Amino acid sequence: MKLVIIGGGPAGSEAALMARKIDRTAEIYLIEKQEYPQYSPCGLPYALAKDIENFEDLIIFPKEFYEKQGIKIILNQEVKKIDTSEKIVVLSNNEIINFDSLILSTGSKPTKVEIEGINKKGVFSIKNLNETKELSEYIKYSKKAFVVGFGIIALESAYALKKRGLDVTIVARKARPMRQNLDQDMGDIVIEYLKQKGINLILGKEISKIEGNEKVTNVLIENDLYPADIVLIATGVCPNIDLAIEAGIEVGRGILTNDKLQTSVKNIYACGDCASIKDFFTGKQIVSNLGTNAVRQAKIAAINALGGDEIFNPVINATITEIFDLKIGAFGLTEDQLMESKIEYAKAKYKGKSRAEYYPGAKDIFVKLITNIEGKVLSVQIIGEEGVFARTLAIAFAIQKGMNVYELSKSENCYCPPLSPTIDPLQICAELVIKRLKK
Amino acid sequence: MKLVIIGGGPAGSEAALMARKIDRTAEIYLIEKQEYPQYSPCGLPYALAKDIENFEDLIIFPKEFYEKQGIKIILNQEVKKIDTSEKIVVLSNNEIINFDSLILSTGSKPTKVEIEGINKKGVFSIKNLNETKELSEYIKYSKKAFVVGFGIIALESAYALKKRGLDVTIVARKARPMRQNLDQDMGDIVIEYLKQKGINLILGKEISKIEGNEKVTNVLIENDLYPADIVLIATGVCPNIDLAIEAGIEVGRGILTNDKLQTSVKNIYACGDCASIKDFFTGKQIVSNLGTNAVRQAKIAAINALGGDEIFNPVINATITEIFDLKIGAFGLTEDQLMESKIEYAKAKYKGKSRAEYYPGAKDIFVKLITNIEGKVLSVQIIGEEGVFARTLAIAFAIQKGMNVYELSKSENCYCPPLSPTIDPLQICAELVIKRLKK
Repeated sequence: MKLVIIGGGPAGSEAALMARKIDRTAEIYLIEKQEYPQYSPCGLPYALAKDIENFEDLIIFPKEFYEKQGIKIILNQEVKKIDTSEKIVVLSNNEIINFDSLILSTGSKPTKVEIEGINKKGVFSIKNLNETKELSEYIKYSKKAFVVGFGIIALESAYALKKRGLDVTIVARKARPMRQNLDQDMGDIVIEYLKQKGINLILGKEISKIEGNEKVTNVLIENDLYPADIVLIATGVCPNIDLAIEAGIEVGRGILTNDKLQTSVKNIYACGDCASIKDFFTGKQIVSNLGTNAVRQAKIAAINALGGDEIFNPVINATITEIFDLKIGAFGLTEDQLMESKIEYAKAKYKGKSRAEYYPGAKDIFVKLITNIEGKVLSVQIIGEEGVFARTLAIAFAIQKGMNVYELSKSENCYCPPLSPTIDPLQICAELVIKRLKK
Repeated sequence: MKLVIIGGGPAGSEAALMARKIDRTAEIYLIEKQEYPQYSPCGLPYALAKDIENFEDLIIFPKEFYEKQGIKIILNQEVKKIDTSEKIVVLSNNEIINFDSLILSTGSKPTKVEIEGINKKGVFSIKNLNETKELSEYIKYSKKAFVVGFGIIALESAYALKKRGLDVTIVARKARPMRQNLDQDMGDIVIEYLKQKGINLILGKEISKIEGNEKVTNVLIENDLYPADIVLIATGVCPNIDLAIEAGIEVGRGILTNDKLQTSVKNIYACGDCASIKDFFTGKQIVSNLGTNAVRQAKIAAINALGGDEIFNPVINATITEIFDLKIGAFGLTEDQLMESKIEYAKAKYKGKSRAEYYPGAKDIFVKLITNIEGKVLSVQIIGEEGVFARTLAIAFAIQKGMNVYELSKSENCYCPPLSPTIDPLQICAELVIKRLKK
């Protein structure tokens, strides 16, 4: 059995290691275009913030680790062609590698943004390690940064740049942070927090021009010119699917897969940011873009590529982040999305405390739940400085097992005054939704 | 409708408030023998530690709050008799109150311990507010404290006394802390931690005599005499059931209830530490002794006492505590209990990190899971300085909904480097159990 894996990010590397775990004799090739073996892309903003000391700390395993496991790791090489009938891949150095099974884990790239002057020095994205390292150096000679976008990476980047001492402005077309996951009322809590932390917000507008000779010196937003040293583009990513398209593999937004993570070509699998998988809430194909799901897909893809028969369940895409001390956990459908899909829903929002009310240091925690009319949870939005991870993880597991708000409100929670209130905020919020469902 | 509630602790007070919520016109009596309305008994060790500034902070609602809701709250009065056929209760001042429905929430009292000299000044328990306040004063003139017992209250008390600057020794018959919930291997982690924090441990022994004239001056343990100022008895509690027994209501260890929390007498209900309820793992009747379950039972008892028809589900008795920075979350059956019940099981223990491996400040987290041969979780034991509450809450909800280790290992978790690793320690531990189940 010869397994070739294209892309050595979190998905590809995990697939290689999993394949080795279940098959001691398979020939395994892992091909990566960057000079590093797998590192944690989710850690990049925190390394930029210097919460993590060195960028190299993000490298999970050195090249030698893979080699010791008998994985042939090829760095600094791109695959330029896949021939599905000949079962070969062609590298940029024209080397040809044949395969029995192929896993595509080609990842994603920053969405292209059309702004005049975007190729100037001082414009960055933080999609990969080298570019983020460059940005980290560039910060030392900079004072003012503009972050374009309002998603999770934009928020984490703004935090990192602020922590590094820059004057930071977020510029976003829509006045709602993480709008895939948060409604406006919950987004406003984040906006308030960003303001408190001294981050400038220019919302409902966009940068029309980046000025400067070689280097960025100003950005133009409507008719206002702002001095700027750095422009960080964080408007999202799109899957790397060109290679798959050229090979005749079916794609949607990502490379289409079935519940075995098999593509339209029998012996070819896809996982990670390049793959399209099923959404738990809608049943539709989506691209996850989460590290958790990349790794989880990778394991299943590896098992099946080696002849196994494992199912990959639909994803809830449980998203969580930390910026400064604020944690935001969110997944499911926003009210916008529900209205657009004409799904009837009930909702409730509750502001509770992370610990017993009387316990010093208890922090506000905001919980919003949305359900369908049967009480099935369709959206979870949790924001606060403490206890957000706990509640997000707890409800994530619970709803994957099918727990509805009625069951949630009746479930036994865990209580100790320094850690939680007697009745969990999640459950109080569930009770509030139930009241509305009963009307 | 006239509802009388005996006992104004967490269960009784919650029952009164819930009853008022669902019935605006019912006559509600709440009778409490102490001078305070409901306070948080779980907060007492933390008030003793001075983590919570004043004992009075633990009082959830003042007397006036109940009165404003039209609840007749009677403090400093005990019920000395219940006549179930006449439907009356007789107070210690001989006042007679008739009822349509009665809720027993008489709570629990410290288990009696037979030690010579136990009535001397300086011997305490921390079961109620006044006694804990007295202890808090007594600490000011004390140097050396001995805590008898090794359960959760003993651990929390030892922590509190140490934090108050005393030299603290735990004396326990068995060398295993929280042995209802922890196996020896996990208990040893707690023991190691207590030692690091400078708490003395005398295990496998007991105090045979408390010496001193009026006040404690020494304790005798086997043939060794130790100077001592305080002896804190924390060997557990037993339910207050005398009143129920005298009234002819059926009891086991606690007052027996069905799944509506009704006692053997039709219009009489029981909830909280005095009530016997069904255990999730064994199906047997147990007394929970947890605040979460007291409050949850109280709601159901109130609903049903007013003519409702709600079911109280069996309890997992999810226990969690914090001592110093260590959190311990545990529930289910220990290996001892499983062997005694001749239940076949598989187990795994995993030492992971609370955050991404590379993230500064990541703490060790120890997870132990035990399942039956079908993979149903029978025991959860989690110990660490960070992230224990999250995992305990998450698996508590999940297994109440019936999630087994196979499903747990495949579930989507939440990941962000400062908050969690890519694959949750709970899930890695689940995978380890699965490996053993497959053998």
